[in-house]
Amino acid sequence: MGPTQKADTREHTLDRMLNLLEQAAARGASLVVFPELAFTTFFPRWLIEGEALDQYYEHGMPNPAVQPLFDRAQVLGVGFYVGYAELTSEGRRYNCSILVDSDGEILGRYRKVHLPGSFEPRAGARYQQLEKRYFEYGNLGFPAFRAGPDWHHAIMGMMICNDRRWPEAWRVLGLQGVELVCVGYNSAAYDPNGGVTEDAALRTFHSTLVTQANAYMNASWVIAVAKAGEEDGSGLIGGSCIVDPNGRLVAEAQTLGDEVLVADLDLDLCRQGKDKMFNFAAHRRPEQYAVITERAGVVEPAVRQPLAARRS
Amino acid sequence: MGPTQKADTREHTLDRMLNLLEQAAARGASLVVFPELAFTTFFPRWLIEGEALDQYYEHGMPNPAVQPLFDRAQVLGVGFYVGYAELTSEGRRYNCSILVDSDGEILGRYRKVHLPGSFEPRAGARYQQLEKRYFEYGNLGFPAFRAGPDWHHAIMGMMICNDRRWPEAWRVLGLQGVELVCVGYNSAAYDPNGGVTEDAALRTFHSTLVTQANAYMNASWVIAVAKAGEEDGSGLIGGSCIVDPNGRLVAEAQTLGDEVLVADLDLDLCRQGKDKMFNFAAHRRPEQYAVITERAGVVEPAVRQPLAARRS
Repeated sequence: MGPTQKADTREHTLDRMLNLLEQAAARGASLVVFPELAFTTFFPRWLIEGEALDQYYEHGMPNPAVQPLFDRAQVLGVGFYVGYAELTSEGRRYNCSILVDSDGEILGRYRKVHLPGSFEPRAGARYQQLEKRYFEYGNLGFPAFRAGPDWHHAIMGMMICNDRRWPEAWRVLGLQGVELVCVGYNSAAYDPNGGVTEDAALRTFHSTLVTQANAYMNASWVIAVAKAGEEDGSGLIGGSCIVDPNGRLVAEAQTLGDEVLVADLDLDLCRQGKDKMFNFAAHRRPEQYAVITERAGVVEPAVRQPLAARRS
Repeated sequence: MGPTQKADTREHTLDRMLNLLEQAAARGASLVVFPELAFTTFFPRWLIEGEALDQYYEHGMPNPAVQPLFDRAQVLGVGFYVGYAELTSEGRRYNCSILVDSDGEILGRYRKVHLPGSFEPRAGARYQQLEKRYFEYGNLGFPAFRAGPDWHHAIMGMMICNDRRWPEAWRVLGLQGVELVCVGYNSAAYDPNGGVTEDAALRTFHSTLVTQANAYMNASWVIAVAKAGEEDGSGLIGGSCIVDPNGRLVAEAQTLGDEVLVADLDLDLCRQGKDKMFNFAAHRRPEQYAVITERAGVVEPAVRQPLAARRS
């Protein structure tokens, strides 16, 4: 998807999504993947409070504003992944995604675990990254779901944006035998406050690299979908892609606008990796991985003593 | 390094390694990385027993056969990583690597955790992969070492071959703040028994892909070094490379023979990743990773019930 500006109406954005859905269905797709926070602009880039903030969240899913997407998908016999800001009836907020099957039922739900950014706004900055303020950490783990016959009983999992850079997220899905991971993202193309950091080409390379490698290391298909382009004065990378269980790109977006990529996904291609190189039961050594779940941060080794001291 | 045939003498192989060491030192290297099982052919490809097997192991390190490498490196002021088959004084066997500093002291030792292949030979196969028979699983974890001033106090870690495909190994090093990972490998280029599986190009792609992505995801430099080429009728991929903390290739081998790659490694390039995107303390969520250390193998989700059953 191309960018969605703050000034765009919900109806306008939904019309674009319906148009993409129609194009995909016409090209034979049975699953359509939309990006993270697909219905709105990436609002964590601003400090917003009260009702002005609440307008970006979905109160219930589906709800009247998005119902046409559910309805049209069911008529077309297409299911979809979509990311959105979730406000629960208990008032809790998550960066969420769902898988909706071709019956129009919600097959699975995921709440983003790896929230980037900060809780406190950066003083004086024009653009923020306030995901840690606007969302709680996801509390559903990384659940895998067994699809029905319309998706050939695939074992499917979801991630959202930053999650794809964390091999732990992939491995938790891999340990459930995942065969297809859907990821939506909104990733900065540059520092919108003018800092000199990685350029858009390097950031797109990073995104594609982690998608390919984690697909291979878990012998899974991946569909990774960007919201891309210049959005309210802040740039987002593109690089939407479909990656096979060998880590090879089979389709890659060519633009930063609305664009449909289609590929046939042969789930049997997962078997070579899952049964041999990445036969986890035969080759993983969890007793050597303890530190991965024991602590979050880095503990560096001590400074080495000079030779004389070591020998004394 | 190019291949080392079964018929090659130890002296011949050591002469090749000394020659590579001299070339690297002449080009300004302070650290030279040799491959896995650098002193011998990749002997786990055969079923061997008794003394015929023991000849492939190093009894003590250094020992008279390899002492010239230690001596020459110290004279040149160069340290090195080298992989070899270790037979301890207690009779235990490991696929091992060491880091030797420019004082000629062993800074660190690592024993391969992710042993591929099988314990039992495959009946009727001309070539085997018997690492699980010839070695015990490494019992030293993935330790990181703080180097001395000759390597700018870098935090260094080691892997051996198959380890590089396992993100858990990288993460355990990453959680120690690793800035430079050395990996030696002997990876099959094709099925030597004639099976139709991945070709050499795909296998080299896999090797490079995991090296680049895990370097990026842990914001570390990586030096990955192959024993390559046709060795005793069985092919080994090349693809030796030096990768920066952004996952970019900065040097890549062009041949399957003896070849020296040299690069300047700026350890400060690790800081951008370690302090921001991969600030582990700020962004990792270990409470969601439990399954990674709880079990080795896959547990698939239940088959989804048909719609009618779910609604009943």
